[in-house]
Amino acid sequence: MRTPLLDRIAQPEDLKNLSDRQVIQLCTEIRGFLIEAVAHTGGHLASNLGMVELTVALHRVLKTPQDKIVFDVGHQCYTHKLLTGRKAGFAGLRQLNGISGFPNPRESEHDAFIAGHGNTALSLAIGMARAKKLKGEPGQVVAVIGDGAFTGGMVYEGMNNIGSLNNLIVILNDNKMSISKNVGTLARYLTRLRTNPKYLQVISNVSDTLKAIPAVGPPLRQALSSSKALVRRAMYHSTMFEDMGFQYIGPVDGHKVLELEQTLKNIRIRSGPLFLHVVTTKGKGYQPAERNPGGFHGVSAFDPTGILDPEMAPHESFSTVFGRALAEAGKKNPRICAITAAMKYGTGLQFFQHQCPNRFFDVGMAEQHAVTFAAGLASEGMLPVVTIYSTFLQRSYDQIIHDVSLLGENVVFAIDRAGLVPADGETHQGIYDPAFLSQIGIPVYSPSNYAELRYWLDQLLNSKMEGPRAIRYPRGGESKALAKYGCTGRDFDRLVSVPGAKAVMVSYADEVEDMLAACGILAEQNLPCDGFKLVKLYPFTDDFLEKISQYDVVLLAEECVARGGIGEHLSFALSQRGWKGQFIHCGVDNTKLTHSTVPEMKEILGLAPEQLAQAVRDALERL
Amino acid sequence: MRTPLLDRIAQPEDLKNLSDRQVIQLCTEIRGFLIEAVAHTGGHLASNLGMVELTVALHRVLKTPQDKIVFDVGHQCYTHKLLTGRKAGFAGLRQLNGISGFPNPRESEHDAFIAGHGNTALSLAIGMARAKKLKGEPGQVVAVIGDGAFTGGMVYEGMNNIGSLNNLIVILNDNKMSISKNVGTLARYLTRLRTNPKYLQVISNVSDTLKAIPAVGPPLRQALSSSKALVRRAMYHSTMFEDMGFQYIGPVDGHKVLELEQTLKNIRIRSGPLFLHVVTTKGKGYQPAERNPGGFHGVSAFDPTGILDPEMAPHESFSTVFGRALAEAGKKNPRICAITAAMKYGTGLQFFQHQCPNRFFDVGMAEQHAVTFAAGLASEGMLPVVTIYSTFLQRSYDQIIHDVSLLGENVVFAIDRAGLVPADGETHQGIYDPAFLSQIGIPVYSPSNYAELRYWLDQLLNSKMEGPRAIRYPRGGESKALAKYGCTGRDFDRLVSVPGAKAVMVSYADEVEDMLAACGILAEQNLPCDGFKLVKLYPFTDDFLEKISQYDVVLLAEECVARGGIGEHLSFALSQRGWKGQFIHCGVDNTKLTHSTVPEMKEILGLAPEQLAQAVRDALERL
Repeated sequence: MRTPLLDRIAQPEDLKNLSDRQVIQLCTEIRGFLIEAVAHTGGHLASNLGMVELTVALHRVLKTPQDKIVFDVGHQCYTHKLLTGRKAGFAGLRQLNGISGFPNPRESEHDAFIAGHGNTALSLAIGMARAKKLKGEPGQVVAVIGDGAFTGGMVYEGMNNIGSLNNLIVILNDNKMSISKNVGTLARYLTRLRTNPKYLQVISNVSDTLKAIPAVGPPLRQALSSSKALVRRAMYHSTMFEDMGFQYIGPVDGHKVLELEQTLKNIRIRSGPLFLHVVTTKGKGYQPAERNPGGFHGVSAFDPTGILDPEMAPHESFSTVFGRALAEAGKKNPRICAITAAMKYGTGLQFFQHQCPNRFFDVGMAEQHAVTFAAGLASEGMLPVVTIYSTFLQRSYDQIIHDVSLLGENVVFAIDRAGLVPADGETHQGIYDPAFLSQIGIPVYSPSNYAELRYWLDQLLNSKMEGPRAIRYPRGGESKALAKYGCTGRDFDRLVSVPGAKAVMVSYADEVEDMLAACGILAEQNLPCDGFKLVKLYPFTDDFLEKISQYDVVLLAEECVARGGIGEHLSFALSQRGWKGQFIHCGVDNTKLTHSTVPEMKEILGLAPEQLAQAVRDALERL
Repeated sequence: MRTPLLDRIAQPEDLKNLSDRQVIQLCTEIRGFLIEAVAHTGGHLASNLGMVELTVALHRVLKTPQDKIVFDVGHQCYTHKLLTGRKAGFAGLRQLNGISGFPNPRESEHDAFIAGHGNTALSLAIGMARAKKLKGEPGQVVAVIGDGAFTGGMVYEGMNNIGSLNNLIVILNDNKMSISKNVGTLARYLTRLRTNPKYLQVISNVSDTLKAIPAVGPPLRQALSSSKALVRRAMYHSTMFEDMGFQYIGPVDGHKVLELEQTLKNIRIRSGPLFLHVVTTKGKGYQPAERNPGGFHGVSAFDPTGILDPEMAPHESFSTVFGRALAEAGKKNPRICAITAAMKYGTGLQFFQHQCPNRFFDVGMAEQHAVTFAAGLASEGMLPVVTIYSTFLQRSYDQIIHDVSLLGENVVFAIDRAGLVPADGETHQGIYDPAFLSQIGIPVYSPSNYAELRYWLDQLLNSKMEGPRAIRYPRGGESKALAKYGCTGRDFDRLVSVPGAKAVMVSYADEVEDMLAACGILAEQNLPCDGFKLVKLYPFTDDFLEKISQYDVVLLAEECVARGGIGEHLSFALSQRGWKGQFIHCGVDNTKLTHSTVPEMKEILGLAPEQLAQAVRDALERL
């Protein structure tokens, strides 16, 4: 596709001299480019198509990097990247050494901050705006936040702290959905605002009309006077955003680029923080949607993390296997509830929702509430299953401690995207959950194929287990190499047994495949090394420790942060048994995360087969 | 003090037959009892004095445990405890084997849930109310939430998920402050609601007046018609709580017990969730406040955790030493900002606020925002110091990872109440921070006396350090035993050196005193054991590891959760150096926490001097 205008934009400054007609043409070019580019590399499409005009208008009016644009979540920043000199980079989007799919100041001075988790932009923007004030620096700070993020509490914490910052602009990018369809009372509230676009206009007209009417006696005069006060109040307190201290403007059509630009120009000088409500259409201009307007709704079934709705494209994955198994269990056991935080399709819970609609709860991007809500359900005898991606479960750390663990509530954590995650980069890795759950004292199970996932989920749901417990599984599908082992129902399995082996490797989840490959490498070199797969990561069983302590060299490899991870626990447990061997821990150095494929990341982190084999080889030589 | 009526209340049911006059008398008795009892044992006074009438009214109308009262934060539950058969227990309030200062279902079936951290009640109540619906059970679930908690985001996550639960009542206990004085736009908003008690009344009158007026020509008719619509809208959307889907009633005077009771009776049957806004006075009936009404404002300086405002009662503590030192540093360095989350007095930050008002930020009970706001400040070149109690910093786990650590922002964490905390019980222990901060990779310093706190704070603020770093210190004052060591400026110190010692004990913070006592016990028994005090907990220096690895027996004692704690890190680090000695880890078993003195808790946890000495003795015998 030809993009003659876009090709002339090397930096935002180049936007300033375009004519109105050219600005509109530029938006068309960008949209075309995005569809073509993302079709090629994969990535977030729908959210970016919705942001084209708003981003162009922002860069027409603002002057980054002095002005700041802070994107919430961040995957909607593609147009911003295009306008800030990174068009060529799209060939390597989300690939190792290519451009990230998220903003990152290390990539461009125009990227105000990193993003990936939701709800952070307003707090960051307040910090930046406040710093500018303290330093006496000019410039606007704009936080661009999707309506989905308004289901998360941190945005309200931020709104409570906007003070009178007149260099702060919050743009609500209202596309009527978050990752899954938006939920809750806030969504209904925004709908009311949207469906009353003439609201302020009407109020203003009434006020003028009242002014023009001569007084006709005391009761009416009083009534009219009160009415005017009410009108003022209605105007002044017309939205909850004004209640929170913002000047509110909107709703504004987010696809009329020239009007957006004019609106942004008009509001540059003001007395306090400003809230601009922009209505956009996710997937705007996406061809299949345009050809079939009724199919627009289907766009909401796009998971913008790049996974198609599994109902539409039912590739089997750990998520769908989990979702189907939980739906089956829910049919049999009326105590089971499923809770997710704006990840219905991503976690496969649509199957459960279909089966048990009354016991399915998508609480929005509200991981804290999700967990404490589950504690409340559990305290009344239900069996809630909290289903959240590993990286987002970090948001619930305190709630897991305080609301679930202290009273030992019967809550099952189903942790999706556990372990390394491709393409999305450092913000989305599921590397902390084994460490923080074991720290709290919650048993953790980590199946490495579908059969184990089904079996252990069933155990966690149906057994006599009491108190919180967790099951975690990788993103994507099972590997063929691991599928073939099926499920033995044991807490651990010895997968490789070589006579005379003095060394053993232990691993869990996807890393087991690399461990097996490493055992294979060593076997070819006549270096016998056994291989264990752990399913129950915490606590270890005595049987497991007894078996492992027979070896002189123990290597534990895990896609988990090294400090406080399962490897450290194992090293400690072995030393407590008086074991004097060599312990090798291959875990994740969280300063080395990047966007790449998982095998590439493993090379960087020292978790690839040859690296594991090398570590054991070195240790055997030291014996 | 005589409490004849209160003495007749063995259970809530006994309230039902009291006359109106007796109910009022009961409230007087309860207030008198609370002042006397808390003056004797210590505890939360002001917040409980504000809750007397509301609690009595609730128990007059509800039937617990079938109905549920979920207290947010929970320290305002004393009247509830009095009415549910626990009056005698107040002699042992907050003492080992006595009653807790917080609700706990293990103590009474009338306590719906545990509490301690703020913001949890609504999510819990939604869970309980939803479970009742799913099970077809009757009963109301009432969440009692202070206005301070409305500065925390989780309440909004909950509000977004109230659905149409008609068995859910949220009571906003609006006492115009949280732990410190309330802050932010929400506080201003509540003030507007409070100062317009006749608001709904006025609107209703106008509406009636308009109805009574005959139409006088089309323009006016149209204007009036629009006005009526506006009036309806104003009535319907009069508060943000209605925007969020509640039926809103209030503000109601929280000290008129009979009116409160009538209001609660009126609202028992309804179509959806209800929001009752009750205005109370913290410290209501507290004698010093009553004698000097102007001094009512001074009540806001009460730290309801039991610490008097240090400006009024300047007992020196780690908090005040920190606060004064930071104020001094702030005077010299204009980049330093101080941020806290509703703990201004508790953390000693009033000194900084006095010195640098523009750079002091109390963000409310919003730990998540506090940290991400700090990241925003840091990204623009400021040096923010986030000052939060250890137990509440758990709320920021994900923000520390995602917003501070990934980009290595220059944020200093000053962690107050680190380690074991007396009286408050299991919800308030500061036992996780060394584990989770080291897991993330953030250097942690843990001074054990004022001199070290001053020195290391200065290092963290003024040195060439880059990226996030943390300093943590205990609740209360320094021990005389530890004060005498002063500060050497080293990352660690050998405090006990005995010729020929084969064993060593290592500890940090307050536990160092117990360690020294243990060394003393062993010395008396002619068992030489050295003692090291760690200041830099993570990462260890090579010098430290080298020195420690000279011993055959190493014991690390810490007031930190055992799994993933500094002890496991040390065991692992030593084993990586090929050390083959016996390692003993004395950490916290987080299932054994209770409300008691710290020495009592240490006995329970195995951290008392004789227990440490015994562990070393046993190990030496095994040599």
